[in-house]
Amino acid sequence: MKFQLIRVATIVAFSVASLPAANAQFAKPEDAVKYRQSALFVMGNHFGRINAVVKGDVPFNKEEVIKNATLVNTMASLAWQGFGPGTEGGRALPNIWTEAPKYKSYQDKLQASTAAMLVAAQSGDLENVKKAFAAVGGNCKACHDDFRKK
Amino acid sequence: MKFQLIRVATIVAFSVASLPAANAQFAKPEDAVKYRQSALFVMGNHFGRINAVVKGDVPFNKEEVIKNATLVNTMASLAWQGFGPGTEGGRALPNIWTEAPKYKSYQDKLQASTAAMLVAAQSGDLENVKKAFAAVGGNCKACHDDFRKK
Repeated sequence: MKFQLIRVATIVAFSVASLPAANAQFAKPEDAVKYRQSALFVMGNHFGRINAVVKGDVPFNKEEVIKNATLVNTMASLAWQGFGPGTEGGRALPNIWTEAPKYKSYQDKLQASTAAMLVAAQSGDLENVKKAFAAVGGNCKACHDDFRKK
Repeated sequence: MKFQLIRVATIVAFSVASLPAANAQFAKPEDAVKYRQSALFVMGNHFGRINAVVKGDVPFNKEEVIKNATLVNTMASLAWQGFGPGTEGGRALPNIWTEAPKYKSYQDKLQASTAAMLVAAQSGDLENVKKAFAAVGGNCKACHDDFRKK
């Protein structure tokens, strides 16, 4: 009986540990919404700083662009934790949850492109940065078009 | 005359570049407020994840604690950009701007302690993490007590 209980406890503990972080890491669904909005806002701000360089409004400074590209890449890796089950709200469209695999493929594309933008930043070549920046921007837009309220 | 203009332009450009990031990086003051709130919210969430380990609610996993301590440290380095001149609002008390050197000393203390918490996390010693965690918590609280609306 004791063995059975331990086994059950282990299974429960394992199941909790394998839940998406969305559930484990937020006290309430609103926190998950605020977390994803926060991560995406910080991401957008640092993406905007690279935009200013790409547009020529701010002189190209390799170290600054690396710093901003690192933050964009980090934030892009965080935001999705905040879209766990039961966290509908904000500007998120319901198909985030009803078309989860499609949404996941958009996340993956974005993350691949923010990682590539960081590599481009590290190359120190502004033309590389411009191309990688455009790819990230395209992925942001595609996801906003399909999964965000207008 | 042309030389004069270039000199003036250089001086202006230099002055803009040396402004606190607060002014340069935000289109409007509300963006600065949202930026600092976002960075602090993400910081608080990852600090909370370390808290769960410190309290014993979540088993100690060195790599997870390093990940969270890294994020806390990164966010702690970002938030203050959002407290530039003319960005009053949210829960920020006015003495952030009227007692700027004191406020800056609180920021510096926090950042030193989040950096130390990352080192503690990397040591893999939970007792180190607990001590460093308490120091960060103390610095959060001190600043909230003196510079945040109740």
